[in-house]
Formats: sequence, C-alpha cells, structure tokens
Amino acid sequence: MNKQARWIWYPGDFEIYHSNLLHERREERGVNRIGYWVQPSNWMRVDFRKIYESAEPITVHVHTLGYGAVKVDPSLEGTQYPINQDITLPAGRHELRVCISDTAKLPCIYVTGDVVSDETWAASNTTIHFYPVGCTPAFTSAEATPHVFPFCYAPMDYVSCEKFANGWLYDFGKETFGPVTLKTDDPNAEFTAWYGESIEETQDPDWCSIWEKLSGKTEYRMRSRAFRWIYVEGDAPHTLSAQYEYLPLEDRADFECEDPLVKKIWDVCAYTFHLNSREFFLDGIKRDRWVWSGDAYQSYRINNYLFFDPEITKRTITALMGKPPYEQHINTINDYTMYAIISLQEFYFATGDLAFVKQMFPRAKGLYDFTVERLDADGLVVEQPGDWVFMDWTPMDKAGPISGEQILLWKASLVMAELAGLCGLPAEAYTARAEKLQNLIREKFWDAEKHAFIDTFASGKRNVTRHANIFAILYDFATAEEKAEILEHVLLNPEITQITTPYFKFFELQALCEMGRLDIAQAMLTSYWGGMLEMGATTIWEEFFPGEGKPECFAMYGDRFGRSLCHAWGSGPIYFLGRYCLGVYPTDVAYKKFVVAPQPGIYKRFKGTVPLPQGEVHVMYDNGKLTVETDQPGGEVHWHGGVYALEPGCPLCVE
Amino acid sequence: MNKQARWIWYPGDFEIYHSNLLHERREERGVNRIGYWVQPSNWMRVDFRKIYESAEPITVHVHTLGYGAVKVDPSLEGTQYPINQDITLPAGRHELRVCISDTAKLPCIYVTGDVVSDETWAASNTTIHFYPVGCTPAFTSAEATPHVFPFCYAPMDYVSCEKFANGWLYDFGKETFGPVTLKTDDPNAEFTAWYGESIEETQDPDWCSIWEKLSGKTEYRMRSRAFRWIYVEGDAPHTLSAQYEYLPLEDRADFECEDPLVKKIWDVCAYTFHLNSREFFLDGIKRDRWVWSGDAYQSYRINNYLFFDPEITKRTITALMGKPPYEQHINTINDYTMYAIISLQEFYFATGDLAFVKQMFPRAKGLYDFTVERLDADGLVVEQPGDWVFMDWTPMDKAGPISGEQILLWKASLVMAELAGLCGLPAEAYTARAEKLQNLIREKFWDAEKHAFIDTFASGKRNVTRHANIFAILYDFATAEEKAEILEHVLLNPEITQITTPYFKFFELQALCEMGRLDIAQAMLTSYWGGMLEMGATTIWEEFFPGEGKPECFAMYGDRFGRSLCHAWGSGPIYFLGRYCLGVYPTDVAYKKFVVAPQPGIYKRFKGTVPLPQGEVHVMYDNGKLTVETDQPGGEVHWHGGVYALEPGCPLCVE
Repeated sequence: MNKQARWIWYPGDFEIYHSNLLHERREERGVNRIGYWVQPSNWMRVDFRKIYESAEPITVHVHTLGYGAVKVDPSLEGTQYPINQDITLPAGRHELRVCISDTAKLPCIYVTGDVVSDETWAASNTTIHFYPVGCTPAFTSAEATPHVFPFCYAPMDYVSCEKFANGWLYDFGKETFGPVTLKTDDPNAEFTAWYGESIEETQDPDWCSIWEKLSGKTEYRMRSRAFRWIYVEGDAPHTLSAQYEYLPLEDRADFECEDPLVKKIWDVCAYTFHLNSREFFLDGIKRDRWVWSGDAYQSYRINNYLFFDPEITKRTITALMGKPPYEQHINTINDYTMYAIISLQEFYFATGDLAFVKQMFPRAKGLYDFTVERLDADGLVVEQPGDWVFMDWTPMDKAGPISGEQILLWKASLVMAELAGLCGLPAEAYTARAEKLQNLIREKFWDAEKHAFIDTFASGKRNVTRHANIFAILYDFATAEEKAEILEHVLLNPEITQITTPYFKFFELQALCEMGRLDIAQAMLTSYWGGMLEMGATTIWEEFFPGEGKPECFAMYGDRFGRSLCHAWGSGPIYFLGRYCLGVYPTDVAYKKFVVAPQPGIYKRFKGTVPLPQGEVHVMYDNGKLTVETDQPGGEVHWHGGVYALEPGCPLCVE
Repeated sequence: MNKQARWIWYPGDFEIYHSNLLHERREERGVNRIGYWVQPSNWMRVDFRKIYESAEPITVHVHTLGYGAVKVDPSLEGTQYPINQDITLPAGRHELRVCISDTAKLPCIYVTGDVVSDETWAASNTTIHFYPVGCTPAFTSAEATPHVFPFCYAPMDYVSCEKFANGWLYDFGKETFGPVTLKTDDPNAEFTAWYGESIEETQDPDWCSIWEKLSGKTEYRMRSRAFRWIYVEGDAPHTLSAQYEYLPLEDRADFECEDPLVKKIWDVCAYTFHLNSREFFLDGIKRDRWVWSGDAYQSYRINNYLFFDPEITKRTITALMGKPPYEQHINTINDYTMYAIISLQEFYFATGDLAFVKQMFPRAKGLYDFTVERLDADGLVVEQPGDWVFMDWTPMDKAGPISGEQILLWKASLVMAELAGLCGLPAEAYTARAEKLQNLIREKFWDAEKHAFIDTFASGKRNVTRHANIFAILYDFATAEEKAEILEHVLLNPEITQITTPYFKFFELQALCEMGRLDIAQAMLTSYWGGMLEMGATTIWEEFFPGEGKPECFAMYGDRFGRSLCHAWGSGPIYFLGRYCLGVYPTDVAYKKFVVAPQPGIYKRFKGTVPLPQGEVHVMYDNGKLTVETDQPGGEVHWHGGVYALEPGCPLCVE
C-alpha cells in the first residue's frame, strides 16, 4: 500500500502565508483595518526534491495550484515533465525535482503515486540550500489545499431569539466564533447583522465594531467573526444559523479546589484560550485578532499547561519571526523581538525540538543582529526611529535606556548563546555581550537605597516601576539577596505604581509565585477573575477594574466597545495554577526530568492535572496530604523540603 | 479641473510583480517551464502618503483591489476611513495615509477626488522609510489596473492559408507575437494549434515547442505567443484571427548606405528588437522569453540607438536586481550581476536620471556586497557553490579565477564608487578595491609573451581566449600599448578561438570598432546578418552558421527547434552602426555634451539618424563629404582630426 501523501511547502512559508491573510482580515466599523507592521511574503518560487530508487519506471502525479514542471536529476537542459497529470519517470536511483511558481498563493505540492510527498522531502527557494519541507498531518487530500486553514466546524444553536428594537436579537449564550448564515425568502429584504460581545454593542450603530449589510440574495453566509449576540435589524422573516469554528485542541489539564468558583474560572479561562488558539495565538478574537509577540509569549506558557500542543507555538513563533531582511522590530516593539527569541529557547527546553531550533536560528540571529545594530554607544537598548519601546502601558520614565529592555536583551543574549551551541555555531559573542550587559545593568540601574532597579538613569529621577524588577526575578537576573529586597520594596510595596494590565499582571503573578507568594495570585484569582464572572463574562476580558459598571466595562483605547471581552492573556490562571499550585515544571529538556513541587497556598484541598509532552501528572492535595501520580519517568516530588522520586504508574503519597 | 490620477505602487514592485508573472509563463512541449533562479516577491503591505492642504473638507475615493484603510495624520488609534468609496476628510494641512495589504497581487491604489494619486506621493513597506512611489503614465483609469501589463493590440492578418497535412497551415508572413483566436461552430470539433517559427516546427509533434489542444468550445482565445506559422490540425471548419501584441515604442533612428541589403538588415534588426522589447528586454520571444542580465545589458545599449526609451531599461534593471537579501547571482551567473551594476552607471550617464540611481543603489550595493563576500583569499572572483561563471559558451580554461570576471569586478567597483558618490555616500572602499584589483589582474593575468590576458593562471596552461581581452578594450582597462598588442595578437589573430555566439560577437565588434576596425563589423553585417536573410529570416536569429541548411539551422541546445529565431542580441547592428559608423556618443551626462565622429569604413555613402534623450542627430556622408545636423546643443563633430562645434539647427558640412 502506498504511503499517505501530504501537501508540502517551503518551511515556514505556510505560517507567513496565513499570517498575511490573518492580518488583513480585521474589521472595525466598516473599515478593513490591517496590521501596521512589515509582513514578509512567502517565497513564490520553490523547488522540492526527493531521492527515489526503483527497479521499475515509476508513475507519479504532482498536484498543485501553481505553475511549474517536474525534472529528474535536474540539469539546465534536461527533460521536463508536466504537473497535474500522471507522469512516468525512469527506473533507478534518481532525484525527483518539482519546480513550482505561484505569485498569488503559497506554492505547495501534493504528490501521489509510486512516490508521495511527505515530511521526508526537502525544499529550496531556488538556491542550492535545501531544508526539510513544511508539512502538517492536516493536509492529506488533493482537494483540501494548504491555502485554507483547516479549522473544524460544528453547528451551534442560539439559546434565545427575541424581537428587539427594529429586528431580532439572537443570544448564543456565550462568546463564540464562526460563520453565521442568514436565509430569507425575499431577495429584496434588507438586513443589517450587528455583532456584539455585549448587547449594548449590537445596539450602538456608531460604535459597534462589526456589522454587515445584507440585501439582494436569499442566503448570506457571513465570514467567521467573534460574537455572543447577533442583532438582525430588518423586518423580513428569516432564519439564522451559526457554526462554531475551532481547532480540535484537547484540554489535557484540569484544576479544582474547595471553592467551586475556582473551577468555574478555570473552565472559562480554558474556553477563552481555545477561542484564541487558531492559526496562531491571537491576542483577542474580536479586537485585534492579530498576533502580538508579547501576548503570544504568554500564550506559549499557558499552552504548555493546557494543550501542550507544540504545533501552534511553532506556527506562532514562525509567523512572528517572519523573514530577513529585518528592518523593524516584531510588531515594531523592541521588547517583542526579545520575547520571540527567548520563546525559542523556552520552546526547545519544553519539547526538545532541535529541528525547529535549527530552522529558526537564522531568523532569530537576524532579529538579534538587527537589535544589536541599534544599541547606543554603551551597548544599551534605546528607542531608535521606528521603534516602540513598549514594555507596558504603565507610566514609566522612558527618558533614556530603560532597565527592563536591558534585562530582556541580556536574557536574549544568553538564549542566543544556547541556541547557537545547539546549532553547532560559535556562542562566544553572545555570552560576552550578556556578561558585559550584566555588569552594566547592575552598575547603571540597581539602586541600593531603593533596593530596586530604576527605570532609567538618564533623567536623574531614579523612578522605580515593577517591570524590570519582575524580570530580574523571572529571568533569574537578580541575586537571591536582590530578589528578597525586590519582593519587599517593590512587589509588596503599595507605593510602587500598581500594574494596570492583565498582561503584565501575568508576569507579576509569576514573579510572586517564584518568591513563594502564590497566595496573592490565588486571592486575585477569586477577586479579579471572579469579579469578571460576576459581571456576566463568559470569556476572560482584556482588562477589568473591579467595581466598574456597564457600559464603561466594555470601553478601552477611547472606543466604547474597544475592550476585548475574550483575551488570551486572561487565561493566565491555567499557567500559574499548573506551574505553581500543582507545581509541575521541567528541569531538563523535554521533561526528561521534571519536578512536582505543589504549593497549596490558601487552598485546603485541590486536585489537578498537568500535561507532559507525552502523558501527564496528577496532583491531589487534601488538608496536608499530597498524592502525585504520573505515567512518565523522570519525575521528582519536592514537598516540605523533602525530595521523592516519582515512579511511572505508582502514586506517591506524602503528608 | 482636477489633476489626472495615476495608479501608484511601492517603487520597483511593479517590475518585480511582472517579472514573476513573466518567468512562470514559458511553455515547452506541453510543460510549463519556469525560471530557475530566486524571484523575490513584491511587498504585500504598503503604506502610501501625501500631504494635503485645504481650507475646506475634501472628498477622495481610494480605488484598490487590496484590503486596507485610509488614515489622516496616522496614529495607532486614530479614525480609519474605508477604501473603494467616497470619503470626506478634514480641512487643514494633513497627512493622508493609505494602508494596503494584498497577498495575491501587487498592492496599488488609484485615488480620485480633491487629492489624486500621482508621482508626488511616497510609499513605504510599513517602515518609517518612505520613497517616491512607482508610477507610469500608462495607468490613468480606475479600471485598467497595473496587474495587467499595458500592451497595445492591432489586428493582424495571415498572408496565406493552405490545406496542409491533416489541417490548415496559416502563414503570417513574418515572425510575430500575440494572441490567436480560433472560432468554430462545432464545440465537439477537436483541433490542435501548432505554433512554429518555421514550417518544420509546426509539423514535428515531438519537438514543436508550443501547441495547444482545443475542444469543447466554439471560441478559443489562446494566450500570447511567438509564431510565424500556425498549423491547425483538425478537420472541422473554423476561422483563425490574430492580434499583434506590442509596445508603442517609436523608432527614432535609421540607417542606409549604398548597399540596399544593409537597410534591409537594419529594418529586420529594428523589428526583432521591437518584438523583444516588452515588459522587459527579453532574450527571445519564443525561447526563453526570460530576462537575462547579459542579454539585457546589450539591449540597453541598442535601446539608446533605436528608441532611447529610458523606461524599459529601468524596468529591466529593476526586475533583474530584485530585492535583498541576496542569496544568488542574477540569473545565478557571476558575470550577469556585474553587468547589472555596470548598466546602472551607463544608464545614468546616458540619461542623468539621479532619482533612479538613488532608488537602485541599495540593491546594487547588496549585489556588490554579495559578490565581495564570495571572493577568494586574493580577492578574486571564483565559482562558489551555486554560482555559474558563464562568460560565454566558448571553451575556456576555467580551472581557477578567470580574467574576464576580474575585469568585470574591477569595472563594477569603479561604477560603485561613482554611484556612491552620486548618492553622497563614501566611495573609498570601492576605489580601493578597484586599484588593488587593477594591479592584481595585470600581475596575474597579463602575459607579455602572448601580448594578451590569459584565461587563468591556476592550471599553468596560460590559455588565451578573446573575452577578457575584449573587456580590457571595452572597459578601458588596458593601456594604449596593451590594446594595440591585443588587437594584433588576439582580435586579428585567427589562431585564437573564434567567438561562436552572436552574444559575445556583439562585444567583439564593439572592441574592433573602438580600435578603428569598423570595416570588420560592416563586412560581417552583410555576410552574417545578410546570410540569415538569405535563409528567409524575418527576424534575427540567436545563432547562425553560414552555410548551414534546414532544418539544422533551427536546432540548438540539443533541441530540434531550440534555436530562437527572434533574438534581441541579433539587433546589435543598430548599435554599432549608430555608435561607430554614424559615430554618435555622449561625453557628458545625459548628452549635455556629445560627439559625432563618423567612420565610413567600407561604405561610400550612408545617412542615418541617432536619437538623443531629446531630439536627434542626422548624419549624411557621400564620398568624402560629411553633413551633420542636430536640434540639440552640446554637439561636436570629430572628423579627420578636426573638431567642429555643432550648432542646433545649423547643418555642418565638412569634406
């Protein structure tokens, strides 16, 4: 029997292609708002090759939507065979080469017959350098081409429909995403479909983000969009149906404790994360529905504690890193380039996927080199023309090089050294830069009197915000003594400006947990996340101010409905409950060794599951009694100062 | 009245877009044979901007096939206005910004209303760097978008149609190019249209390059192709019609002498050149119908003596130079990268178009840097993996660095120094490399005993071919003494292997003319070019061996009809008659000063016209009496050692 054929493409180009489609799809009040950073193109000319060996002539069929031809043992003047039909190729050991051009779409092929296209092929952008092709298990038929992202669809019913204002209001019961179809008998009937994450949004024609005017047909299948409510304005009879568009990512984690609200929050976080896990990790499904490296970096971590799906992380890193030449930071933001580089090392450490490191290293290096070219005379990150030194929306003294950016560059330099080593390339330059930076950062930014890293030295204000100090803990830049000082004088100091975004709260909660203060995260879980649920949230919001009412809770960025009500970074509890409360984390590449160090914090009882690359860890705690079980080797339980080896299949109980 | 709007795009991307389409279009015996080198993509995300000032609010309409939006005084969160509809924008002085994404086609816009799109706009690939937009007078209506290259069409009749073999043979009287339409009343009728540059090609189903099988319809408009004969195989009644597809380039030159054959050759050369002057300068219209930098370099020179159309030269240089990052030589060939760089300087010298130099300099620098990175330890050009050190098909000792490549690099270095200077950039590195190379080339390759530059020193064979020695004259590398030695011991030496391609013959004839031996070129004109006409050529061939018969005169590259019978480089006589016989050439940028130095050679009488950027020069010679006239200032006649100023409008007569 023949092997299963798959569509194949130039590695990384599938992601670039779909990222380009994604970033031109955003709608906002009748305007098509497109991503505002450089988007590279996939290669339009690609050569694919495979060595075959056969005692008999072989028959193959190259399916493609592009132009091109097939060669055997390619030379300038050799025979060329046609695509999209059966061809017979000579017996013997030969190189089969398929040359494809596609100016409009992703060049890709699907080869059937005696040789099939699969992950054993190599591809080149018409140079002499061939790399393992891009390929996923999702594309195994000639008809379903990689130009359409392979989402799943399930019928979805609304939970209520009522006559409302000048039409009908459909409630789907919770935030969701997918195509909506409206049918009518009267092609002259006119409708407007108003999409809302809130009822208020559907009723505000000036500020509603997404709407579509319908007339002239009897069936309208509208594009996939985010909504909970659809308000169909118009008199004529019609029917409305919807499909849920999703990826079949499996929840491999769980968590519950004595407080049922926590389980409820956990489930809403998981659902929120599902909705944002699509071609790539999105920030939010209504706004922006774009890929942001800062948001994505947090999603990679959450992913490892919910789906442990390496593919979506790889797709997202690939889309964000784009292609050389680099003329701009990722999303234009300095910090976001650093997160992308750091994420490559974290991904490798979690999965051991060396092939991906090798594929992406030239791009990481390109981004790192771009960053280094733009440092100031001292070798510090500064805001150059076209840059956006973002860090966070918190007011911060950005009058000069800021400490948070330097710590990220220091970490990225260490990461580059490690990645270079993995690729068998020299690492000294990266290590040297990290060492030089380490001293410079401490000299320029550590303030012994304030027991903290200051924002910047340039203005003389010596202002302290939480951000760099959080990184100093998270990335293990600070010494143990410095960390203790930071905890007391910054993190637990109410006089230091509070973090106002769930985005940086995610980093802050991790830093607190690292410092043994999981209890703060747990308390915030019920008050902050629980507060959103009390407001009726069915997915976690981009932002929330306890005590705020409607409709101001829908507003952001000066836009009455500008706040995303389904935002990936809201799913952080999945990460910090799995990582710190259940306490599971790897201590060697691909979890060959891992630790289970539960911290009950304020919970009396809890139980939960954390996925491993293969298998999983179950943790149960009940009033001082801990039970840990896993089906994988390499585990070690840390509990009250004791260390206990974990045998696969043997539950470990300790008091 | 409003100004005329034009479609605009990112500079250089129109050329890249159409080059990509062109290079996937070649057909060969039912196979779609595509260009085998790296083709970069146009940018898919482009921002366009224009400052406007108005006391009243303005109305504009942005036409585009892409996605996107309009902003005023762009900021991250400002209002966005829709495309493809009238929009009203605020009064005052503002930046109008149009942000367009198009993953499938060239992103471009056409803005009408109170502000129109034209050459005064700037574009960016979403970075902070804006450049003058790409724009041509050809696209001035919303409907005719830049995605279709603006060719002209004229009905074209066949001169005969006869029943032939199993169908009908249509003869269009001469080689031509365009779409052919076949109509029939019977949709079940089956036809095959066989395209031939010769009758023999239409009758050889195994080797005919281009054919199309037709059935199932009553009208078939076939794509534009090269042909003289169409053999319609099939019994059913039908009608055939064709259109000539062309650019309306004006012949601004002419030449005739006492031999009517010369005028006939001149006309056939001009027609050949017209057929090959399309989106870009092609090598040939049937095979390859690609853009080759070596062929194109010769076409730039011919262009200046026939159309003097700067636009097609700019398009061709732009398409060939592509975009960084550079991973490969142009067309994969080392020498071809050098020609592209040199052509930029020659174009500037002929036209004074500094804006084009500034647009292309970063690309020329990218190609030069790529070349320099691949030199050997001595700083000499060698064949690195993926390179093709071509030079010519002549057997040549390529066992090490070859002299012709070094002279090209030397010349390209001088050119880079000049271009850098024009762009206000440092030139020292280029000059230094040229100086170092000059000494190294003379030391390593000049053979005083052979009075010539040898191919290479590496093998010890010290073989001499014509190529490097021709370049040493053409690019003024050799001293006057060396040139005289080369003329005697190489060019006029029958023991040195003859050039076998019209391609390098073009360079050789120029070198001979430079050395005062126009007579050789003139003799070859009647024997070689005249010989083709005797064989029935209606356009000039890629190759010709006097004395050969049919059908072997159609063969090349092991392909029975592989020889192109309409090849641009065959039009060289236009250049050498204008440049050396009429003797017109610039001595200052953009012909601000020019020389007319006629050389009768073997002709008793001749007259002709050579175009200048504006205006023209007429030269008439009759048995020792010379008359020169021009409508432009700056001219100077050189004749028998005398120098005569040329006044516009005043014919100058000298004996």
